[in-house]
Amino acid sequence: MKFNLGCQLNYSISTPSTLIFNICAAKNNYQNILQETIKFEPSLDYEEYISPVLENRYLRVNAPEGDLQVSYQATVELSYLDEDPNSIAEVAPAELPLDKLHYLFPSRYCQSDRLMRLAQQEFGKLQPGYSRVTAICNWIYDNVTYLSGSTNSQTSAFDIVTERAGVCRDFAHLGIALCRALNIPARFVSVYSHQLQPPDFHAVFEAYLGDRWYLFDPTRLAPLEGMIRIGTGRDAADISFATIFGAAQMQDMTVFIDCLEGKSPTFTTDAIATRSL
Amino acid sequence: MKFNLGCQLNYSISTPSTLIFNICAAKNNYQNILQETIKFEPSLDYEEYISPVLENRYLRVNAPEGDLQVSYQATVELSYLDEDPNSIAEVAPAELPLDKLHYLFPSRYCQSDRLMRLAQQEFGKLQPGYSRVTAICNWIYDNVTYLSGSTNSQTSAFDIVTERAGVCRDFAHLGIALCRALNIPARFVSVYSHQLQPPDFHAVFEAYLGDRWYLFDPTRLAPLEGMIRIGTGRDAADISFATIFGAAQMQDMTVFIDCLEGKSPTFTTDAIATRSL
Amino acid sequence: MKFNLGCQLNYSISTPSTLIFNICAAKNNYQNILQETIKFEPSLDYEEYISPVLENRYLRVNAPEGDLQVSYQATVELSYLDEDPNSIAEVAPAELPLDKLHYLFPSRYCQSDRLMRLAQQEFGKLQPGYSRVTAICNWIYDNVTYLSGSTNSQTSAFDIVTERAGVCRDFAHLGIALCRALNIPARFVSVYSHQLQPPDFHAVFEAYLGDRWYLFDPTRLAPLEGMIRIGTGRDAADISFATIFGAAQMQDMTVFIDCLEGKSPTFTTDAIATRSL
Amino acid sequence: MKFNLGCQLNYSISTPSTLIFNICAAKNNYQNILQETIKFEPSLDYEEYISPVLENRYLRVNAPEGDLQVSYQATVELSYLDEDPNSIAEVAPAELPLDKLHYLFPSRYCQSDRLMRLAQQEFGKLQPGYSRVTAICNWIYDNVTYLSGSTNSQTSAFDIVTERAGVCRDFAHLGIALCRALNIPARFVSVYSHQLQPPDFHAVFEAYLGDRWYLFDPTRLAPLEGMIRIGTGRDAADISFATIFGAAQMQDMTVFIDCLEGKSPTFTTDAIATRSL
Repeated sequence: MKFNLGCQLNYSISTPSTLIFNICAAKNNYQNILQETIKFEPSLDYEEYISPVLENRYLRVNAPEGDLQVSYQATVELSYLDEDPNSIAEVAPAELPLDKLHYLFPSRYCQSDRLMRLAQQEFGKLQPGYSRVTAICNWIYDNVTYLSGSTNSQTSAFDIVTERAGVCRDFAHLGIALCRALNIPARFVSVYSHQLQPPDFHAVFEAYLGDRWYLFDPTRLAPLEGMIRIGTGRDAADISFATIFGAAQMQDMTVFIDCLEGKSPTFTTDAIATRSL
Repeated sequence: MKFNLGCQLNYSISTPSTLIFNICAAKNNYQNILQETIKFEPSLDYEEYISPVLENRYLRVNAPEGDLQVSYQATVELSYLDEDPNSIAEVAPAELPLDKLHYLFPSRYCQSDRLMRLAQQEFGKLQPGYSRVTAICNWIYDNVTYLSGSTNSQTSAFDIVTERAGVCRDFAHLGIALCRALNIPARFVSVYSHQLQPPDFHAVFEAYLGDRWYLFDPTRLAPLEGMIRIGTGRDAADISFATIFGAAQMQDMTVFIDCLEGKSPTFTTDAIATRSL
Repeated sequence: MKFNLGCQLNYSISTPSTLIFNICAAKNNYQNILQETIKFEPSLDYEEYISPVLENRYLRVNAPEGDLQVSYQATVELSYLDEDPNSIAEVAPAELPLDKLHYLFPSRYCQSDRLMRLAQQEFGKLQPGYSRVTAICNWIYDNVTYLSGSTNSQTSAFDIVTERAGVCRDFAHLGIALCRALNIPARFVSVYSHQLQPPDFHAVFEAYLGDRWYLFDPTRLAPLEGMIRIGTGRDAADISFATIFGAAQMQDMTVFIDCLEGKSPTFTTDAIATRSL
Repeated sequence: MKFNLGCQLNYSISTPSTLIFNICAAKNNYQNILQETIKFEPSLDYEEYISPVLENRYLRVNAPEGDLQVSYQATVELSYLDEDPNSIAEVAPAELPLDKLHYLFPSRYCQSDRLMRLAQQEFGKLQPGYSRVTAICNWIYDNVTYLSGSTNSQTSAFDIVTERAGVCRDFAHLGIALCRALNIPARFVSVYSHQLQPPDFHAVFEAYLGDRWYLFDPTRLAPLEGMIRIGTGRDAADISFATIFGAAQMQDMTVFIDCLEGKSPTFTTDAIATRSL
């Protein structure tokens, strides 16, 4: 499938500031960026840094006082693997590739160490495998209310599991924390998400099963097949779409994604996997 | 039923200290104290304060450096009311006696304001009444592991609901917080508890239903009929068995309670209510 | 001094709801209510409950679907005691009237048990007495930024001491928690506050020193002499100006207070005490 | 300087378990491992994984039921750089190498996002540079009590900043969180520490200043020059000396480190830097 996507962010900057953006589609073996444009208004030099392994793309600009507009647009060809969920097993710690180990550790927003018993009680007796992570997503969907504005940038999985309301990033954090508490490596993914209403950046998560990472979205707000990866991290702390050092106030933001070619993605019960990331 | 009960507490005091004990059986219309003795060794004057309404008995001593032994023994006749659980309704906020209102508010260890959604999701659709509080107790019993040493004096219902392990005071705090989150007044009760093994101070809770307070024990560790009330409060903060100002270290503690007369209490499905407290 | 004060609260009610207001000036030996009116629009019966000891006035109405307007107006004569701060001592736990004991215990928003060491480090070596509570207020004023909208109804002293921003209720909670951590009984007071800009309900705290309660306001936003007490409690949990059971949405609120007679209150370095509350 | 160091860990394993150890001295350009032995008793195959960039060494064994003894011993030559603290500047976000960016982000135990205002108030006006990180360490030393057993594996910088007691890992977490809150990249380092009494694994932290990482130890328990690096991570979550999957109970542990050659390390006011890690 081919998508046209992007965003436009407007800031009002009151003192010279450094801004680091993570808004570009990741380049990897299942996301082919056919064309893209990044534009700063006023025109500014920027530095791009692509992190090793995860290939997150960070853009740094040093912006003067005044207005700043950041525009990103890309055409991306996407080719997830579809697999049969029933064939996908969990990997025991005895056999886990050790470069995945740190995705078992707790992080700022995913305090898996504090959810061990809860995870065991709710999911400990289920058949290990893809279906168990699906059960986690279903539990979150059934027990947590999606409620705009109910949480903030400090809200963590530990809060959400009790307070039971949140937005996509909170849903993803809770999914990650529960997976890790069951010894399933899990991580946070930010995406452009086709059919998400209203259009916005979206957050989902990946669990490492079998021999690769599989995408999960406990919000059920949009099809997994229509998600273009931006960033990958332990949790939202790693891949804010904008990290600001200085005094910059966001004025408004638009996000868009259209399907250019191929049938429009639909909800599926298949497992959606990246090829090898 | 008649019980012989008491405790002995030994402290090592390194600087002159003030200690306030809440270890005496409460005097009220269903607990008749036939005889009691309080002894401090070395002999010390003490001041007794009985709080209004709740009738908690606080003993204050100012103890010099050295060893301190506190001994309490009492013979108490107990006469709870047994009622048919099916006849006991919840009281709507529209009709709640307003002197019970503050038992709906959150407290140090019972942050009911943060458990509103969870309480609604788990118990919101159940039939209101005594059976709903029983359902809360069953949920706690099923989902929280009783584990000595798993928590400390700072642990609250908010922690327990996620961490899923605790001791009697944690079970009671969670019961209270869930009740309050459903607009059921609830409070903390410390007791001498017959048949509790190993013997110790015990903590349970009360919910206000119909026109009186009913006892609940989500730990299921001992029969409600064998519980002699010591203190009543919003949560454990109000009725520590010992509040210490200074440098006093507990060396050891024994608690005892024997049934002197009447058939030994047994577990019951009846509702256990105080007469009018 | 004589004040004219009151408030008007407008709600939109979507299902029949019970509302409990704590907005009336307290009647006590230093607040003489010369005249007052309470009006509900549409006209509704209400029940008033005055709590023992603290004399908080709670008004309960059961409101139908639709708009609800609550108007309160009163003329109040106020006569605080002014005292010389230098003459006011702390009361050791050995001598504290035991009916003040529970104001030493931690509460929902004032987790004094977790601030013990911090309180000792910052204030432990200061001369006990009125001036030490003033030092606490100064520390809060110097270290916490008053910032509208920075906190919410779940924010507690434990959060504020680290996050260092809040509103009047947060300032009061932190003052209370630090006092209790130093064994100084402290409690929360809601007031109509003359000269507060913009006009709003205000929150301050009281510490028990010598033989009575003294008012403190770490926000320094208005003179203590111009504060008309509404409610008194362990913390904000006890005396919300409105507790809502049901689905009522506040539309807007106005609060007013004018000095009718006597010189307008001014900031003072004297200690402001209630007569005997 | 040359050191002989190591540890011996004894476990009792009740079901076959996977254990992952991070106890080996790191191999890098300032730590030359002249010789080392790793021994499992009973003899077991192990897999070693060395993480990219940080070069943490993880050993995985799958252990059967029964006793397990892990012994590690190494001879290591150490050559930190000594530098003049006055010459070491902070690096503005505008110029920070972007591969250091993620050490500015909050992590499980270092919630820098919640300490922003506190860090600004305490350290915001100090001259940026090495001396500012020293000021952070001094503040921690002065305000936090080192107290064995006062914290547990869930305790974070957010807790410590208020509760003011902890052990070496807590001191390091707080140092890291405060640095990050000031936009100074910081990370956690576990070490064998010469002259630490009693001998144990030790935890310190590094801040990125100028063009490299500098070691800091807010506990002041041992000289920085005598520290042999084991692991490096965002916080303690990344580099537990033992991560256990299964049911293994530690029975006892010994840690040792002796200076073989060169003058014994002493406390110094110089800055201790790694060459290029």
